Amino acid sequence: MVNEEKNLPTTSKSAVLQEVFDLEIKDTPIKKMKPTDVMIKIMAVGICGSDVHYYDTGRIGNFVLDGPLILGHESSGQIVAVGDEVNDFKVGDRVAIEPGVPCGRCEYCRTGRYHLCPDMQFMATPPIDGDLTQYITYPADFVYPIPDDMSYEVGTLSEPFSVSVHAAQKLDIQPGKTVFISGAGPVGLLTIFAAKAFNAGDIIISDVEESRLEMAKKLGASHTINVKEKDVKEEVSSFTDGHGVDYALEASGNNSAESDALLTLKPGGKIAYIGMPTHDTAPLDISFMTSNEPQIFGIFRYANTYPLAIKILHDNMEQANRLLTDFYSLDEVTDAFERTRTAKSDSLKVIIYPNEKLRDE
Amino acid sequence: MVNEEKNLPTTSKSAVLQEVFDLEIKDTPIKKMKPTDVMIKIMAVGICGSDVHYYDTGRIGNFVLDGPLILGHESSGQIVAVGDEVNDFKVGDRVAIEPGVPCGRCEYCRTGRYHLCPDMQFMATPPIDGDLTQYITYPADFVYPIPDDMSYEVGTLSEPFSVSVHAAQKLDIQPGKTVFISGAGPVGLLTIFAAKAFNAGDIIISDVEESRLEMAKKLGASHTINVKEKDVKEEVSSFTDGHGVDYALEASGNNSAESDALLTLKPGGKIAYIGMPTHDTAPLDISFMTSNEPQIFGIFRYANTYPLAIKILHDNMEQANRLLTDFYSLDEVTDAFERTRTAKSDSLKVIIYPNEKLRDE
Amino acid sequence: MVNEEKNLPTTSKSAVLQEVFDLEIKDTPIKKMKPTDVMIKIMAVGICGSDVHYYDTGRIGNFVLDGPLILGHESSGQIVAVGDEVNDFKVGDRVAIEPGVPCGRCEYCRTGRYHLCPDMQFMATPPIDGDLTQYITYPADFVYPIPDDMSYEVGTLSEPFSVSVHAAQKLDIQPGKTVFISGAGPVGLLTIFAAKAFNAGDIIISDVEESRLEMAKKLGASHTINVKEKDVKEEVSSFTDGHGVDYALEASGNNSAESDALLTLKPGGKIAYIGMPTHDTAPLDISFMTSNEPQIFGIFRYANTYPLAIKILHDNMEQANRLLTDFYSLDEVTDAFERTRTAKSDSLKVIIYPNEKLRDE
Amino acid sequence: MVNEEKNLPTTSKSAVLQEVFDLEIKDTPIKKMKPTDVMIKIMAVGICGSDVHYYDTGRIGNFVLDGPLILGHESSGQIVAVGDEVNDFKVGDRVAIEPGVPCGRCEYCRTGRYHLCPDMQFMATPPIDGDLTQYITYPADFVYPIPDDMSYEVGTLSEPFSVSVHAAQKLDIQPGKTVFISGAGPVGLLTIFAAKAFNAGDIIISDVEESRLEMAKKLGASHTINVKEKDVKEEVSSFTDGHGVDYALEASGNNSAESDALLTLKPGGKIAYIGMPTHDTAPLDISFMTSNEPQIFGIFRYANTYPLAIKILHDNMEQANRLLTDFYSLDEVTDAFERTRTAKSDSLKVIIYPNEKLRDE
Repeated sequence: MVNEEKNLPTTSKSAVLQEVFDLEIKDTPIKKMKPTDVMIKIMAVGICGSDVHYYDTGRIGNFVLDGPLILGHESSGQIVAVGDEVNDFKVGDRVAIEPGVPCGRCEYCRTGRYHLCPDMQFMATPPIDGDLTQYITYPADFVYPIPDDMSYEVGTLSEPFSVSVHAAQKLDIQPGKTVFISGAGPVGLLTIFAAKAFNAGDIIISDVEESRLEMAKKLGASHTINVKEKDVKEEVSSFTDGHGVDYALEASGNNSAESDALLTLKPGGKIAYIGMPTHDTAPLDISFMTSNEPQIFGIFRYANTYPLAIKILHDNMEQANRLLTDFYSLDEVTDAFERTRTAKSDSLKVIIYPNEKLRDE
Repeated sequence: MVNEEKNLPTTSKSAVLQEVFDLEIKDTPIKKMKPTDVMIKIMAVGICGSDVHYYDTGRIGNFVLDGPLILGHESSGQIVAVGDEVNDFKVGDRVAIEPGVPCGRCEYCRTGRYHLCPDMQFMATPPIDGDLTQYITYPADFVYPIPDDMSYEVGTLSEPFSVSVHAAQKLDIQPGKTVFISGAGPVGLLTIFAAKAFNAGDIIISDVEESRLEMAKKLGASHTINVKEKDVKEEVSSFTDGHGVDYALEASGNNSAESDALLTLKPGGKIAYIGMPTHDTAPLDISFMTSNEPQIFGIFRYANTYPLAIKILHDNMEQANRLLTDFYSLDEVTDAFERTRTAKSDSLKVIIYPNEKLRDE
Repeated sequence: MVNEEKNLPTTSKSAVLQEVFDLEIKDTPIKKMKPTDVMIKIMAVGICGSDVHYYDTGRIGNFVLDGPLILGHESSGQIVAVGDEVNDFKVGDRVAIEPGVPCGRCEYCRTGRYHLCPDMQFMATPPIDGDLTQYITYPADFVYPIPDDMSYEVGTLSEPFSVSVHAAQKLDIQPGKTVFISGAGPVGLLTIFAAKAFNAGDIIISDVEESRLEMAKKLGASHTINVKEKDVKEEVSSFTDGHGVDYALEASGNNSAESDALLTLKPGGKIAYIGMPTHDTAPLDISFMTSNEPQIFGIFRYANTYPLAIKILHDNMEQANRLLTDFYSLDEVTDAFERTRTAKSDSLKVIIYPNEKLRDE
Repeated sequence: MVNEEKNLPTTSKSAVLQEVFDLEIKDTPIKKMKPTDVMIKIMAVGICGSDVHYYDTGRIGNFVLDGPLILGHESSGQIVAVGDEVNDFKVGDRVAIEPGVPCGRCEYCRTGRYHLCPDMQFMATPPIDGDLTQYITYPADFVYPIPDDMSYEVGTLSEPFSVSVHAAQKLDIQPGKTVFISGAGPVGLLTIFAAKAFNAGDIIISDVEESRLEMAKKLGASHTINVKEKDVKEEVSSFTDGHGVDYALEASGNNSAESDALLTLKPGGKIAYIGMPTHDTAPLDISFMTSNEPQIFGIFRYANTYPLAIKILHDNMEQANRLLTDFYSLDEVTDAFERTRTAKSDSLKVIIYPNEKLRDE
C-alpha cells in the first residue's frame, strides 16, 4: 500500500535528538504501511526518565546514542489509516500505543515473555526511533483502544503504568495483603493504582519529597514515610505490628532505597525492582535472604499488560489526571525536557503535543 | 509415659559446647517421652558449617551462644521406643531425623511453609540442644524411615541435602534445562544430585579447589570452572553458546561468587542463594536485574523435603558415599570439629558416632 | 482448667437432630477448656444446605447420621473465657468460628492443604457435633475477630463465603477478566463478592428464579440469565462476543447446569465446582475438554480463608446484609429448618439465635 | 525465491484422501519457499489415530473432510533447501517437524499458549494438508534438529510424544510421586517416558490387552492392571496402600476408563485427559470432585515441547524403538491404514516412508 495513494502524509515533524542536549524539530519520513499496520496521528506523548537519560547523557547501560534519534515512547493518538488486513480498528479510533514490537518467533515470544525477545524493536532505544512526531505507521497488533471518556494525556500513562501492572502480576498480589512502595515519583505513584486494582490492603509509600507523599495519600496510600526523617524498615515494621509487608516494589532507583526495601518484607515476602537504578549494583542483604526466604523479581518493561492497564487507568481516571503537571507543544520540546530534568517537587509527568496543543495546565 | 518404666535410658552422653572452642562430653538428661514421641539411639551425626560457626565464634547472625549447647543436627539413628499414639514406627526401625519442629499452628505452618514458623525449635540453634548425643526423644512426625540398604552415614546427608531439594523445588527446575552451581563444598556437591533428580540437562559447577571439581565430575557435573583461573560469567556464557543458564544455585557463601552467580543467568532465569554467606551484604547487579528480569530466591532451610531427599539419596547412594571423608567417635569430637574447621581440599563431610563407631575410613 | 472454677457454664441448650425430621432442644455438656481454647457464646448460626440434608435425609455421601447430632456450623459469637496459652483474644471479643479443626500433623496439614486432612474434625458432620448451641469451647487457632461494625449475622456468612474465596483463589481470578456464576442461591450470590474482590470484569450469573437474579444485579452482577428462558452457553457466548468467559463457578449443584457451565469457558478457561451436587455424576463434555483445554477444579471447603473472607464481607457489608432473610430463636429451630427446606424465591439465608434473638426481620 | 531456480522439486508424490476409504497417490504442487522457510524431504511418517478417523469416517468433531486432503502429521525428514533468512539450519540437517503453525499475533500466541490459537494451521486437519508426501516447504521456526544417532522413525514419535510431555508439564509432575496411566496404546506407552523424565516414582498402567501391558513393563511401568480382570480403582488403591495416586493421565479415550481414572486420585491429586474420546461426554463423579478437590486438565495438543520431547526420546531411544511395529512404502499407504485401523494386540505404531523405504521390520 503506498501512502501517497491514500492521500496520507509521507513526512512528519519530529523531535530528533541530534546529540546530547541537542533536540531539533525536523521533518522525517513516515514508514510505508504494511497490510497489518495502522497510521496514527500522535496526540500526546509523555516524557520518561529514559528519554531524559539519552537527552543528557547519551546512553542507558549498553544502549548508546550513535546517530540522530527521535525520542518518546509513552504515547496515544488517533487512527488515520488502516491496513487491508487490519480488522480491529477504523479511522478515527482513539488508541494507546505499546512502544515495543517483538519478533514473534523466538523462544521468549513463543512462551509468552515477549518483553525478553532479543530482537525487540523498542521505541526511542538506539537505533529505533520513538514517536515524539506527528504521524507514525505501526503494527495494529500493538495498538489498543482507549475509552471515549479517557483523555489522550491519561492514555499515555498506559505505558509507564504497564510496568507497575507487570510487577503486580509477577508478585501475584493477593487481596487484603500489605504493599510497600519505595519512591513516589510517577512510576511509584502509578503503582498505587496497580496495588488497588489487585485489592491490596494497606499501601505504605516512601519518598524524600513531602509533596509527593501528599499526592500519594490522595491517590490511596494508607501510610507515608518521609525517608529524610524516618527509617524505612522501622516505620514499616511499626505500621505492620512487627510483621513486615507481604510485597514491596522499589520504584526509586536510589541505592540505599534498594537495600532498605528488601528489609521491609515479612518472611517469605516478595519484592519487585522496577525503578531505573542510579548505580549498577546495590548492596543487598544476603543474610536476610538466607534467613527470611524472600523472593526477588527484577522487572524489565512488561508483556500483555495494555488492556488491563487501560482498564485500571479508566477506573482511576480522575486521580490519574493529577499526575499530569506540565504541557508543551512540540516546538517547546527542549523546554519540556529541561523541565523534566530539573523539576523536583512540583512536577510529575510532562506531556508534549506533537499536533494540536490540547491543554495548557 | 515414664522412661524408667520401660527400662529406657534417662541420661545420655552428649557433646556440649560450653563456650567457644570448649566442647565437653557430659551426661545430659533425656526428655520424657510424650505419646506422640519416639526414642532414638543416634547412630551417626554429620558436622555442619553452622555447628563449626558456634564452635569457633559463638554466634550465627542473631543467634548467640549464651549457655551450654549440645551441637549437631544432621543425624540418623534407630528407634528404641515408641509412644502410645505413634503408629508409623516400631522398635528397631532405621530413621533420619528432621531437626526442626514448628508450632503447627501459625500462619506459616498453616500455609505449608513451616520452615518460616517464628516458634520453630531447631536443633543446635541456641537455646535448643542438638543431637550429638546417644539418645533423644523426638516427635515421630519429624522422623523418617531410611531404606535397609542405606547406611546411617548416608542417612545423615538427608538434612543438608534437604536444602538442595528445597531450592530445586523453589526454582522449579524443569527437565533438560541448564543449571549452574556456584561452589563445590558438601552442599554444592549434594546439589548435583538434586539437579539430576529434576532431570536437568547440563550441570556446570565452580570452585577454587580442583579436587572438589574432580569430585563434582564424578558425581555428574557436565562442566567445571576453577574460579582461580577462569571468569565464571564468561565460562558459563561460552559453555551455553552465549545464552546463560536457566537456573543457578549459589552454595559457596563467598561474596564475589554471590555477585557473579546472578550474571550467569539467561534473561528470565532463576537463582537460589543457599550458601551461608560470609558477609551480611553482597553487591548485586540491579541494572542486570531490571534489564534481564531474573527471579531471585533466598533459601532458608526446607519444608516437606525429607521423603524425597531420602529417595534421591537412595538413587545416588554410591556417589553420596563419596562425600563422607572423616569418621570419629564421640570422644574424639574436638578432633572432628578441628578437622572440619581447618580441612580444605581433602575433606568433605565429617561424621561422628555417638554410640558404636561404625566405620574408620 | 476446670470450667466450674471460672464460673463458666458446663451445659448448653442445643438443637439436636435425634433422627430424620426430629430436631429437639436439649441440654448438652460443654467440653472442658484446654489452655489453647476459648469459650464462645454463640450469637448467630446460619443454616446450610448440608444441615438440611442431614435433617431430611440423614446422610451426605459417605457421612451417615448414626446417633444424635448437634447441627450448625456457620456461626459467630462472643468470647466468654480464654485459655491460659491464648494471647490473641480477650473476653468480650466478637468472633467468627471456622468449623473444621485439622490434625496439624499429616502430609496435607504440613503442605498448607489442611482442608484435605483425613482426620479433620468438622462440625455437624457425623459424629462431630455442630454449634447450634449456646456455648462451645473451641481452639482459639480457628477463631477470628470480626469488626465492631459487622453484625453477628453477617459474621456467620464468613463460613459459606469461605468456599467462594477458596474457589476464587484456586481459579486465580485476575483483574478485568470475565466470570460466569452458575446458580444464584446463597453461595452463588456470595460468589459475586469474591469475584468483585479479585476485581473481575464482567460478572454473568444464571438461575431459574427471577427474584434471585434481581438480587444478583443489586449485588454487582453485570448480566443475568434465566435458564428457564435462555440457553446458558449461547447467552454467555453472545454477551462475550463469542469468546466465552475466563472463569466459571458452578454453584447450583444441578446436573444440567454442571454440564453447561463447562461449555461457557473460552479456550484455556478455568471452572470451579462448588455447589453440592444433586447427583453423584454429571455428563461432562470430554471432547470439549480435549479440544479447548479447560482447567477444572473440584472445590472442597477451604483453608486459610477466614481473615480475607471477613475483610471482603466487611467491604460489602450492606449488600451482604440483603442475603439474610429469615430469623428464628433456638426454640423455633424446626420452623427454621422447614423454612429453609421449602422456601424458594423469597428466602435466602436463615439465621437462628441460640441465645438472645437479635433481630426479627 | 523461486523453487525452479534452485533446481528444487516443484511437485511431490502424496497420499491424498479423496473421500472416505479412498486414499490415492497423486502428484501435488509444493508450496513456494518464503525466506523464512526450509524445504524438507520427508523420510518417515507415523500414522495417528486422527488420520485413521478421517480415513474411515471423514470427520473429527467439527472438522469435516470436504475435499481431497493429504494425510499425515507425525513426521521427520532431511533439509534440502534453506530460505535466505534462516540461520539455524543447513542442507542435510536431520529434523522433526511440528505440524501446527499458529498466527503468532493473537492473545493466545502472545501469552505462550499458541496451541489454542484460533487461526492455527494444523496439518491433516481439513482444509490444511498433511505431509504424507515426498517434499514440503515449511517455516523453519517449527522444525527441530534430531540427533545423528536418532532414527527418522523414532524422530516421528516427537509429535505424539509432545502430547505426553505437555500433559506432564501441565500436571507439574514432581520427582518421586506416583502416576497412573489409563490405556497402553502408543500415547499411553509414550507417556511412560514422560513420567520417567519427570522422575516420577511408581508408574501404574492399565489396558485391556495383556501384550500391551507387557510392553509397558519393559518400558518402565511398575505395575500393570488388566481392566478385563481387575477393577482399576481398587487395584490402584491397593497398590498405593489406600492413598491413591498423585497424578493420572487418561490416554484411552474409553468412556468408562474416563470415569474410573478420576477415582484413582488421592485427595488434591491431578488428572489430565489426553486420549481422543470415543464419546462426546463422560459421566464424571462430581461428588468425588467436591469432596476430594482434584484438579482436572483437558489437554489439547502441545506448545513449546519439541526440544524436550526429542531429548527425552533420545534418552529412551532403544525402548522407543520397540513402539515401531509396521513399515510401509508410500505406495502401500492403503495397506498401512488398514493395518492401523484393524490391528490390535500385535501392532503399535505404523510408519510410512514417502521416499526410500528405510526398514522392513
